[in-house]
Amino acid sequence: MEVRHILEKIKDGRLSVEEGIGYFKGLHYLDVGCAKIDTHREERVGYPEVIFCPGKTTDQVKTIIQAMLEWDSNILATRASENLFEEIRTFCPDAVYHPLARAITVKKRDIETPATYIAVVTAGTSDVPVAEEAAVTAEIFGNRVERVVDVGVAGIHRLFYNMDAITGARVVVVAAGMEGALPSIIGGLVDKPVIAVPTSVGYGASFNGLAALLSMLNSCASGVCVVNIDNGFGAGYMASTINRLT
Amino acid sequence: MEVRHILEKIKDGRLSVEEGIGYFKGLHYLDVGCAKIDTHREERVGYPEVIFCPGKTTDQVKTIIQAMLEWDSNILATRASENLFEEIRTFCPDAVYHPLARAITVKKRDIETPATYIAVVTAGTSDVPVAEEAAVTAEIFGNRVERVVDVGVAGIHRLFYNMDAITGARVVVVAAGMEGALPSIIGGLVDKPVIAVPTSVGYGASFNGLAALLSMLNSCASGVCVVNIDNGFGAGYMASTINRLT
Amino acid sequence: MEVRHILEKIKDGRLSVEEGIGYFKGLHYLDVGCAKIDTHREERVGYPEVIFCPGKTTDQVKTIIQAMLEWDSNILATRASENLFEEIRTFCPDAVYHPLARAITVKKRDIETPATYIAVVTAGTSDVPVAEEAAVTAEIFGNRVERVVDVGVAGIHRLFYNMDAITGARVVVVAAGMEGALPSIIGGLVDKPVIAVPTSVGYGASFNGLAALLSMLNSCASGVCVVNIDNGFGAGYMASTINRLT
Amino acid sequence: MEVRHILEKIKDGRLSVEEGIGYFKGLHYLDVGCAKIDTHREERVGYPEVIFCPGKTTDQVKTIIQAMLEWDSNILATRASENLFEEIRTFCPDAVYHPLARAITVKKRDIETPATYIAVVTAGTSDVPVAEEAAVTAEIFGNRVERVVDVGVAGIHRLFYNMDAITGARVVVVAAGMEGALPSIIGGLVDKPVIAVPTSVGYGASFNGLAALLSMLNSCASGVCVVNIDNGFGAGYMASTINRLT
Amino acid sequence: MEVRHILEKIKDGRLSVEEGIGYFKGLHYLDVGCAKIDTHREERVGYPEVIFCPGKTTDQVKTIIQAMLEWDSNILATRASENLFEEIRTFCPDAVYHPLARAITVKKRDIETPATYIAVVTAGTSDVPVAEEAAVTAEIFGNRVERVVDVGVAGIHRLFYNMDAITGARVVVVAAGMEGALPSIIGGLVDKPVIAVPTSVGYGASFNGLAALLSMLNSCASGVCVVNIDNGFGAGYMASTINRLT
Amino acid sequence: MEVRHILEKIKDGRLSVEEGIGYFKGLHYLDVGCAKIDTHREERVGYPEVIFCPGKTTDQVKTIIQAMLEWDSNILATRASENLFEEIRTFCPDAVYHPLARAITVKKRDIETPATYIAVVTAGTSDVPVAEEAAVTAEIFGNRVERVVDVGVAGIHRLFYNMDAITGARVVVVAAGMEGALPSIIGGLVDKPVIAVPTSVGYGASFNGLAALLSMLNSCASGVCVVNIDNGFGAGYMASTINRLT
Amino acid sequence: MEVRHILEKIKDGRLSVEEGIGYFKGLHYLDVGCAKIDTHREERVGYPEVIFCPGKTTDQVKTIIQAMLEWDSNILATRASENLFEEIRTFCPDAVYHPLARAITVKKRDIETPATYIAVVTAGTSDVPVAEEAAVTAEIFGNRVERVVDVGVAGIHRLFYNMDAITGARVVVVAAGMEGALPSIIGGLVDKPVIAVPTSVGYGASFNGLAALLSMLNSCASGVCVVNIDNGFGAGYMASTINRLT
Amino acid sequence: MEVRHILEKIKDGRLSVEEGIGYFKGLHYLDVGCAKIDTHREERVGYPEVIFCPGKTTDQVKTIIQAMLEWDSNILATRASENLFEEIRTFCPDAVYHPLARAITVKKRDIETPATYIAVVTAGTSDVPVAEEAAVTAEIFGNRVERVVDVGVAGIHRLFYNMDAITGARVVVVAAGMEGALPSIIGGLVDKPVIAVPTSVGYGASFNGLAALLSMLNSCASGVCVVNIDNGFGAGYMASTINRLT
Repeated sequence: MEVRHILEKIKDGRLSVEEGIGYFKGLHYLDVGCAKIDTHREERVGYPEVIFCPGKTTDQVKTIIQAMLEWDSNILATRASENLFEEIRTFCPDAVYHPLARAITVKKRDIETPATYIAVVTAGTSDVPVAEEAAVTAEIFGNRVERVVDVGVAGIHRLFYNMDAITGARVVVVAAGMEGALPSIIGGLVDKPVIAVPTSVGYGASFNGLAALLSMLNSCASGVCVVNIDNGFGAGYMASTINRLT
Repeated sequence: MEVRHILEKIKDGRLSVEEGIGYFKGLHYLDVGCAKIDTHREERVGYPEVIFCPGKTTDQVKTIIQAMLEWDSNILATRASENLFEEIRTFCPDAVYHPLARAITVKKRDIETPATYIAVVTAGTSDVPVAEEAAVTAEIFGNRVERVVDVGVAGIHRLFYNMDAITGARVVVVAAGMEGALPSIIGGLVDKPVIAVPTSVGYGASFNGLAALLSMLNSCASGVCVVNIDNGFGAGYMASTINRLT
Repeated sequence: MEVRHILEKIKDGRLSVEEGIGYFKGLHYLDVGCAKIDTHREERVGYPEVIFCPGKTTDQVKTIIQAMLEWDSNILATRASENLFEEIRTFCPDAVYHPLARAITVKKRDIETPATYIAVVTAGTSDVPVAEEAAVTAEIFGNRVERVVDVGVAGIHRLFYNMDAITGARVVVVAAGMEGALPSIIGGLVDKPVIAVPTSVGYGASFNGLAALLSMLNSCASGVCVVNIDNGFGAGYMASTINRLT
Repeated sequence: MEVRHILEKIKDGRLSVEEGIGYFKGLHYLDVGCAKIDTHREERVGYPEVIFCPGKTTDQVKTIIQAMLEWDSNILATRASENLFEEIRTFCPDAVYHPLARAITVKKRDIETPATYIAVVTAGTSDVPVAEEAAVTAEIFGNRVERVVDVGVAGIHRLFYNMDAITGARVVVVAAGMEGALPSIIGGLVDKPVIAVPTSVGYGASFNGLAALLSMLNSCASGVCVVNIDNGFGAGYMASTINRLT
Repeated sequence: MEVRHILEKIKDGRLSVEEGIGYFKGLHYLDVGCAKIDTHREERVGYPEVIFCPGKTTDQVKTIIQAMLEWDSNILATRASENLFEEIRTFCPDAVYHPLARAITVKKRDIETPATYIAVVTAGTSDVPVAEEAAVTAEIFGNRVERVVDVGVAGIHRLFYNMDAITGARVVVVAAGMEGALPSIIGGLVDKPVIAVPTSVGYGASFNGLAALLSMLNSCASGVCVVNIDNGFGAGYMASTINRLT
Repeated sequence: MEVRHILEKIKDGRLSVEEGIGYFKGLHYLDVGCAKIDTHREERVGYPEVIFCPGKTTDQVKTIIQAMLEWDSNILATRASENLFEEIRTFCPDAVYHPLARAITVKKRDIETPATYIAVVTAGTSDVPVAEEAAVTAEIFGNRVERVVDVGVAGIHRLFYNMDAITGARVVVVAAGMEGALPSIIGGLVDKPVIAVPTSVGYGASFNGLAALLSMLNSCASGVCVVNIDNGFGAGYMASTINRLT
Repeated sequence: MEVRHILEKIKDGRLSVEEGIGYFKGLHYLDVGCAKIDTHREERVGYPEVIFCPGKTTDQVKTIIQAMLEWDSNILATRASENLFEEIRTFCPDAVYHPLARAITVKKRDIETPATYIAVVTAGTSDVPVAEEAAVTAEIFGNRVERVVDVGVAGIHRLFYNMDAITGARVVVVAAGMEGALPSIIGGLVDKPVIAVPTSVGYGASFNGLAALLSMLNSCASGVCVVNIDNGFGAGYMASTINRLT
Repeated sequence: MEVRHILEKIKDGRLSVEEGIGYFKGLHYLDVGCAKIDTHREERVGYPEVIFCPGKTTDQVKTIIQAMLEWDSNILATRASENLFEEIRTFCPDAVYHPLARAITVKKRDIETPATYIAVVTAGTSDVPVAEEAAVTAEIFGNRVERVVDVGVAGIHRLFYNMDAITGARVVVVAAGMEGALPSIIGGLVDKPVIAVPTSVGYGASFNGLAALLSMLNSCASGVCVVNIDNGFGAGYMASTINRLT
């Protein structure tokens, strides 16, 4: 049953408020026409659904966010333009835009934050947007994040000067483009899980991040796993899953 | 012989109207200069020619549609911009534009519609444009379509809640991007043919739909076959061919 | 300084036994000529070096294992043939061969095993060798492992019947070939980190595991990260790193 | 619960025969240790599980076939060597080996065969093994098959002389290597669904069937869908699914 | 020595006109700074240099054309925008723009045209721009061209109705996108060399013409050779080389 | 049997007119079960069918050759092992084996040989097998061939010393592996068509001939066209088609 | 410690000037927030850090350049737009823009220039931008450069006329697109190291420089090594490293 | 003129010994039938021709070596099996086999060796065969080599302990498989040219060295250039060219 039907029935008196609540609780998803919002996801995997904006119209994103707001979910919309954010802000004044990460967040509920933290490391300045997507994702999911910027292997002493922030973390996210070697180096230096996220930064034969992706998959250091190219969100999510393990 | 020559001869009295009809009937295609419209196709394969708009000038598309209108064909033009549609509407007021599917249809003749229907399923909201191209294609070819939106594997219970619409169909079209797993799941649950159409939705290593394409070709569930990336038209056509089998 | 030099000096009286111990402790690696064994690795990342056998001669593997035995490391040699094992057993009777995993292990020291366990899941029977490499790796590194075999998406109810073993784990390894959809499904059902390992099982367009690899990198379920094709060792190592987090 | 346990309990009198039957009926799969045979599949998708032999040990294949024989399933094992067949025949005298198709079949039950038939067409003689896998699959699944051999586009009149066998079918399987053009030609000539199966036959830049695969996915004729390279089994299965539609 | 230097010396009287002619004749190329025009090429390979415009600035193209005009070469500039043409026309009123082919030609000298002709065939209307580049190239090089448009394999009778124009040619150019099957068909029907030129027309998995390229390289019909994707110029040049053989 | 033979037999009274008509109507190919031999091909494209041996059983090749021998065709079987040749020789003593080219030829009829010749050029000694396949193909098809061996660009003066044999030809075949630069060099030096055939010779990143293939497709010299990797047969066939043009 | 902190402390009197200098000398990098400038690099590898502009905001580039100016480094910023240059010029009047190379240079200190020079060679005019990036890089690093333009293999005599400039160099950079054959030719003619840089110039199957890249990696002439596609900077840097060897 | 002809003429008295010497000196290559040995190469590029054995028959290799022995060249034959070596040793007792490098060398003349040396570094033990090919090549070409084994990034301290041998070299060769990160690290630490050679060592997604190749081409450290996968010979040659620069 669609959310609209439930609300109409309540409005028409055909459904009591208590019955409506029952419906909402019992429903495993909200059908808003263009999407079936997986309202059960938080209970199942620990986090609410996240909105991947590309390929969706502005109206579709608005519809989804409006429904989630009624549900009191925390909201994360990734790959969102500033224009889209302006549209969202008209009805959701709590929305925050993260320009480097190109993400919109809305915080409706506080989440308990573990004492441990996630280190988010970048090889170069050009990798920052992807790293920021990871950091914003981890933060909205209730994690503390330490950022370590521009410690790539061309000047590896910069990494050694910043190892404390990295070894102190419970899990490490490393964003790197070009040859993507940094996760291997870090993987050989720490006893924590390393989430490698390749970025599409580089010259021609980086093939939009393929070089870094293959490099990371072939890491000779163990304890490194890999997410999709430029997928800062996925890295932040995975890191959160690990950081929040009890 | 070109259409123009036939008509000029009729006009000049060098050909009687009856002879002209004979020519048109006998002709296996209409030569309109920039194209040879395969007027015999409907008789041969059951459907008239369809216009793939990319790479064609507006004038070429107009010429082709005008000739087909004289032929009383139903018309389907895919990958058409709204601007192109406005041009077509000036001389063809019956033309309809389907914005999500980016398709133009003109219905000149009714086609007998079978009692069975085609289910068109999408993994996510971002896959809807491709699915709509499939649905519009199937409908103009005389099929009833049931749409099932956003039942991808990240929240697989959404699929189970909607299995009735899928198992009730005679043939199932499944559009999915990213890892393209949905056709495998559905292929393992139904005894009907599944047409999988990969979409170009996804992060970097989807390589514009390559990941979903390979995934679908490698489906461990049998009874799944695959069409080109984003080729909703091809999926709808194939589904229609199967649905209309007697 | 090479191990041989240290021992010769002790033998010649040029180095006292105490000095020799000091050298060994201080040394960060053992130079055995064909390799520099990273004896410091266990202290740094929590695990001793592991021997990847392909491309090494039998003599090289023997040299490395002999040196590590003197060091009292636990030993894991991957991609080892049964013939190689027979050579090792001649001087190391404690060596154990795991034929499905193609791994040799030697257990010299006990490791404290956490109460939590790792689930190692396979989509099909043909994926078992890779999964076994993961399981053997995790076990030699001091983890308890639960195996769940052949629960791929072609008959997804088999997965649901076995979810308890999966949701009860602290971290889940999933090995799958062909379209590699299983990690996405599991990722959408559990709140634990999922380590996906693509296998090279499949028909032509699996391209030796590329299809499954891309599928897993593009997982629409979050909380999934990926290791190299057929790299059961890497998956087991990563899982151990997470399972042993305190 | 494992099959062995059920049988042991019956043997021990801890389970009555009737209870045992109930278990077997209720069970959705048979756990034989190395595999979970999906005994529910036939009810769900119309066909029993099929054994893909590569990557399985001889013992594993034997275990699976023995369990299926007790279940009275018809059996199809693909990519089976003649040696494997000899092993199977020792305990299953009804097994038949199809050398061109490299398949083992065991027919335990008759299946109603529809009046319509499937045409299995090859472009060249070298494509016959893949086509035979399709044909044997379709036949064991209860279909009548017409074979049309060596009608590729280098001598296209050979196709035209054999169109009757093709247009008379309810569904057409076309196996072709090299440039894989034949499905496009046939797709432009018939009003039946065409299942294209690329083969790995060809010179260097066929890249083991990639050329034919891409060619078929890009068919300018509609009504063509594609299965994996050399996957005759998948083509035969899909064709059967369509041919048996009522 | 640079052209400018020669002309300056003549102007200054430091070089006689006769000496200047000697220089120009003796020179094997004209150095115009940004390029070394291969003025000897026509003598060597039968045709003057051709200007590939992409990656060159407007000023560079102008400099090259001005030098070639002084040399009385016929000129062909490919991949030229209409804007570039407007610039050229300001100093070269004989220049002609071919909008479909995106080519500029200047005819300074007549070339003897052989009695035989080249057939330029397209599979679909969207392939016309590439075919036109081939046709314009062949014409400026002194060949007669017959165009045959839109005879692709989806309606193969259109090809048979137009075989006379194809079998009558001395050499055949075939431009096709999507699955690129047409050259194979024609190669199996004629005893003349077939030059296949793949176009980048198609859906996603055409990968910008890769599918058609591989298809043509794998042609099961012999007597087919292939040029680069969308390289109508190369096809026209090759055809001219063959057509002008004595 | 050739059309000419049928007519000669009729003229000689060895065949009645009615029988002759029967032959013409009936004969477009010989169906030998595993193949449909295109007996009409010689009349249509100038050459009889050629047997590509890979993927065919010895029995299939024997059946095809026996049928062609009755038809008095000249025979060319490519990619044939010496073992296969021994089988053929038992019933066909005229068969000749060309070990470098791995080809079998049987010459049943003389073909008129043009006065012009084909140059077959190799970049290195390792390219000889592919070049020999081209040469043997051209010779059995009635052409004179000049071989020029090992004139690759690492020592380009070797080419210049041998240009006479190349410029004197009517058409040039160039076989090259590794970077495949030789066709570009020759294409810039001659006014004859150049057929480039990439070979799979080279180090890792030649990717079995892909590097040479791409290099040749991108030749900056015009008048170069390309056939499949290692496809000496295709190159020799194309060269013959051009050399025999009148 | 960040630069800002050091300067604030000096300004506040919390740090003496001498102490400040000590800090700056001791520091191995400058932390400017968005980047860690590797101020130690020149001492280590002989050159200061270079700014790769893509993926960095204008503010980030400005911040980095301002810090480096205080450090008195020579500055090279690659892939810089003219707009970015205008921003830089506002605070750095010594900045120079190289439009063909799309590079910004600032020369703060003179570098000793060796007597030997680097030859930078291009195959075609369209390769000039990449070659200019190499030349500008080499020049700012203190090398003399000779440019040789447009001597590609389509008219190879142009190369021979210009060999003196090439053989006279100590190291040769060769930029080429399309088939990328020029480095092989030059590698076979000189006894100096050749740095090959593939460019993305070409028709479809150049795949944005992949063809030239593979060609250069497979050079049959030795003494050729390769940098990334369009990476003129890397080629110029490598050449400088070699030219400055003593 | 072929060597055999010269010698026959001398033997027959048709050519005086002095004339013969003149011929040999004047000849720029030796035509031995299956190859044209580039005897002029040493004068031109500094090194004699090198024999790449794959794709050549034993007889061809013998013929080439016998001719070079008469020429008093030093000889290097790469990718040679031990069997081939046994054949060579029968007529050339000075031949030496290098089993790890799979190379045959024959030293006929001493070459002046520079005071500087080449460092040949490997990331892991499995990379040794490729590194040895580089070392043997450099040595036969008259260079001193220092080998540094197994200092890959998984235990990066091993590299730092061995930096002296690396920074002391004039040029550094680095062989690495898997993610190929080592050249980037070294490139960021030394001011000498680094020749990176990717090896085919690794798990599935190394794709036989592609991952390492791309990684090295995308090195964020400058001063790194790349040769073909597993091409130790090319790396050694390039290093020699640089080391011998005066």
